[in-house]
Amino acid sequence: MKVHGPAASATVATRILGIDPGLRITGFGLIDTLGSQLRYVASGCIKTGEGSLPERLKIILAGIQEVIDTYRPDQVAVEIVFVNVNPQSTLLLGQARGAAICGAVSRDLPVAEYTALQVKQAVVGHGKAAKEQVSHMVQRLLSLDGAPSADAADALGCAICHAHGSSGLAAMTGAGTRKRGSRLTLRER
Amino acid sequence: MKVHGPAASATVATRILGIDPGLRITGFGLIDTLGSQLRYVASGCIKTGEGSLPERLKIILAGIQEVIDTYRPDQVAVEIVFVNVNPQSTLLLGQARGAAICGAVSRDLPVAEYTALQVKQAVVGHGKAAKEQVSHMVQRLLSLDGAPSADAADALGCAICHAHGSSGLAAMTGAGTRKRGSRLTLRER
Repeated sequence: MKVHGPAASATVATRILGIDPGLRITGFGLIDTLGSQLRYVASGCIKTGEGSLPERLKIILAGIQEVIDTYRPDQVAVEIVFVNVNPQSTLLLGQARGAAICGAVSRDLPVAEYTALQVKQAVVGHGKAAKEQVSHMVQRLLSLDGAPSADAADALGCAICHAHGSSGLAAMTGAGTRKRGSRLTLRER
Repeated sequence: MKVHGPAASATVATRILGIDPGLRITGFGLIDTLGSQLRYVASGCIKTGEGSLPERLKIILAGIQEVIDTYRPDQVAVEIVFVNVNPQSTLLLGQARGAAICGAVSRDLPVAEYTALQVKQAVVGHGKAAKEQVSHMVQRLLSLDGAPSADAADALGCAICHAHGSSGLAAMTGAGTRKRGSRLTLRER
């Protein structure tokens, strides 16, 4: 039996884009994950302003595409939005979420979906955590200097949830290189 | 006062893409409108199959983009979907509608929205018309040999509704040429 050093896969980070969709504000956050290690990359939000619904959906679509083109994530995790008691609000929220997912699939990225419950369990450890607890744990897990904004915190939480859930799978598939578009990137830490 | 022949705008057709969005089946229909005249161009539907939600949204997005790239409409009219009693269904429908609208706005086309009530009033003359009446009137108004499929009928009805509502505006703006992408097209009837 031959013994090698650390497997090649252990030196390759996977970049995850987390999205918390909303018609008014869509939060996003990017992290690199390497085994159990997490590293903050960037976060922010897309504000849609006061235009018509198609104009606002266009801003979400183009915004997510711009984030992807800038930071080139490997995978996308989108929060499953709260089903509002008001059907009209639910419909609007659904359309915003559809636009955010279209931003990802238009760049041929795999999209995973997580409920708010799953995100809270992954980040805080239980599903009844308050928003402040999620924000606090996201700050700790990513060693951030300050608390992230509420929208970015949920998006980063969704990315962390995906990192936890998919680390086993990543170890199994264990590709030695990360393909980003047409480029092969080997990231050392 | 100089008297010219028919205004240039009267010889330029506007091509309208009507869309009836749905997560399982998204219907589409294209018509050319020239003043009060309507001409059928094409219709069909996009079926999303059994994949994951992101995969199905990708099929809707890519399908609408393909229709637009093939038929090069000038304007898009999307039916405002029925708000289901089941919030989960409403959310899914909203996401499908968001993907369809993204298909249009990603090609920089203006998108108008009409309720089923408006479509029925425009096509049949009253808002309580049955689906069969809409289909029958779409067939008559567009001089079709046979009845269109249910999904295509609603999409064509939505395009007809937009043609009726926007004919006054089209006459007012009255550009002598129609710009399609980088080409200028003058269509004689």
